[in-house]
Amino acid sequence: MIQSIETLTAQLGKLPGVGRKTAQRYAYHLLGMEEEDALEVAQAIRAAREAVRPCPVCGTYTDADLCVFCADPARQADVICVVSDPKDVLAMEKTREFRGCYHVLYGSLSPMDGIGAEDLRIPELLTRCKSGGVREIILATNSDAKGDVTAAYLAKQIKPLGIVCTRIARGIPIGGNLEYTDEITLAQALEGRKQM
Amino acid sequence: MIQSIETLTAQLGKLPGVGRKTAQRYAYHLLGMEEEDALEVAQAIRAAREAVRPCPVCGTYTDADLCVFCADPARQADVICVVSDPKDVLAMEKTREFRGCYHVLYGSLSPMDGIGAEDLRIPELLTRCKSGGVREIILATNSDAKGDVTAAYLAKQIKPLGIVCTRIARGIPIGGNLEYTDEITLAQALEGRKQM
Repeated sequence: MIQSIETLTAQLGKLPGVGRKTAQRYAYHLLGMEEEDALEVAQAIRAAREAVRPCPVCGTYTDADLCVFCADPARQADVICVVSDPKDVLAMEKTREFRGCYHVLYGSLSPMDGIGAEDLRIPELLTRCKSGGVREIILATNSDAKGDVTAAYLAKQIKPLGIVCTRIARGIPIGGNLEYTDEITLAQALEGRKQM
Repeated sequence: MIQSIETLTAQLGKLPGVGRKTAQRYAYHLLGMEEEDALEVAQAIRAAREAVRPCPVCGTYTDADLCVFCADPARQADVICVVSDPKDVLAMEKTREFRGCYHVLYGSLSPMDGIGAEDLRIPELLTRCKSGGVREIILATNSDAKGDVTAAYLAKQIKPLGIVCTRIARGIPIGGNLEYTDEITLAQALEGRKQM
């Protein structure tokens, strides 16, 4: 109806999980707030896009030369956790359990979509592994078909270098109910059982 | 962790119903898309804020001198639908039933929050009513306490001018189930019953 509101609605619809109705709600909210506040939102997008880039070593988002992990001498440099996406680093960090470094692939292998090793940061990972000083690679790609294929591919490439490759465990999530757990997860949980 | 991502997350958290987790998801999505695409989102916010203003007559959002309703000679100028918020106009238009004009109040009366008639576009509405040519005022403020108070206040001001004041009907929504309808709505539905 009004071109600039239509455009704004369409642009906000690019956000993940935001349909037309939600985008319209966001658009009207941005129009209803103080102009300064709305422009701050726009400015924050610009500023973040300008400042943030992948760490040249590991691919984690950073606004400095190196990311906070690669730059921190207290982090174990010989254990590298491999994830598919920059936001997976946040998820890992929330556990407060991991004190090693990261490597972000920016996607998963997907031959069907024509995504091969060269399209991801896999060559960079292999270079890191070959340059020495790496003891363990933790494969923390998603627990779906593409994530599993990617992990299997990486393990095959990295194990011959004498580096331990591990895969994060699959099983029933905390609070999970056996009745509502799918059979594949349950089978994996059974297989991965530990002595008490 | 990274200042510009933190800022972006905080800014996106201004959107309605967006908590920290969703804001973070949006932020990472904006960082993950093509830079040009992300900047288009920022630009759309700026452009909309620059172009859109309230119609000087009725307060509906417009990017022209007059809004599409006030400028359209095919709309009945003597029937004015009063709503609280610019996006309520969209909701009314979706019905495709209303062919009159609008008046947006930009809020509801709320003595508790110190919001009186002068803080809303109520003086402008009364001026429109007094200038003649208005036959009916449809009070389509929300069906909550503030909306009802606002409607009652407006009816009291406008009826003495010899203008018909109507309030949109309350009742059971289409598809509504009697069992799950609250008693106040049901009482209103009963009171507003029509002969078949």
